[in-house]
Amino acid sequence: MARSPDVRCSIAQALLEVGGRWSLLVIREAMMGSSRFDEFQARLGVARNILNDRLSGLVQDGILSRTPSPENSRIHYYRLTRKGEELLPVLAALMHWGDRWIHAKTGAPIVLMDRASGVAVQLTEVTKRDGTALKLRDIDITPGPGATAMMRKRLARQ
Amino acid sequence: MARSPDVRCSIAQALLEVGGRWSLLVIREAMMGSSRFDEFQARLGVARNILNDRLSGLVQDGILSRTPSPENSRIHYYRLTRKGEELLPVLAALMHWGDRWIHAKTGAPIVLMDRASGVAVQLTEVTKRDGTALKLRDIDITPGPGATAMMRKRLARQ
Repeated sequence: MARSPDVRCSIAQALLEVGGRWSLLVIREAMMGSSRFDEFQARLGVARNILNDRLSGLVQDGILSRTPSPENSRIHYYRLTRKGEELLPVLAALMHWGDRWIHAKTGAPIVLMDRASGVAVQLTEVTKRDGTALKLRDIDITPGPGATAMMRKRLARQ
Repeated sequence: MARSPDVRCSIAQALLEVGGRWSLLVIREAMMGSSRFDEFQARLGVARNILNDRLSGLVQDGILSRTPSPENSRIHYYRLTRKGEELLPVLAALMHWGDRWIHAKTGAPIVLMDRASGVAVQLTEVTKRDGTALKLRDIDITPGPGATAMMRKRLARQ
């Protein structure tokens, strides 16, 4: 997807690649083991043209790889690259937020477990080095090494 | 936004509320201190009708509150509710992913600091209770208390 050169914000740029509901749902499906077009289509109930568009975009952005099936070259497998796999914390954070704010009554539909111990993973939070959770009010938003002059100016005013 | 009753997935439901690029960028702006329509508009460069639509949706979903200014009842302040503030881990995870995969060369444009210590927060990861990071391959996706029969069946097959 096109990048606007003047927006150097990792959230904005990340959303150019995975913004939009279907892209993140396709990534969720890939994390749950789907790899063929028809699997994504059946499980998401998304229109084929939209799915095709999202899969192509994710391949182009290096989030999914696309390889033809050895048996039938018209069938392709879509698999998460390392870049795609590393979206796990984004999806886990969204899931935990939805568990708390949308499914509080029914209970979590899905639980992520540490395979080795069979214990549920920690809630995805922003933490200090020692693991203590930080809330928005505990945080300062500061310019990093890649901040533009405009961002530095803006953050200095706050 | 309308909910489809048969999709009991916290990610899908969360994305009905905050899916789409502009919604998360509006929330990012609110976290950075914007509260008036014109501030959001100037900082995001988004069309007024789209911004109006996204702000209304976020108010309706209880993510932003909307209160008239005491001086001028035509001006409203939009502020994050607790539900909205708790999206911090989602945005932090997206930001950290973008820092790593999109802005690796320039360096992070923004750094989140623990205000009390002035130390950067931890990278947002999925972890064990002891704080060890878990990758996708270390995780089992299991049905939770709110899983539908269909989801249980699907997860049992994997």
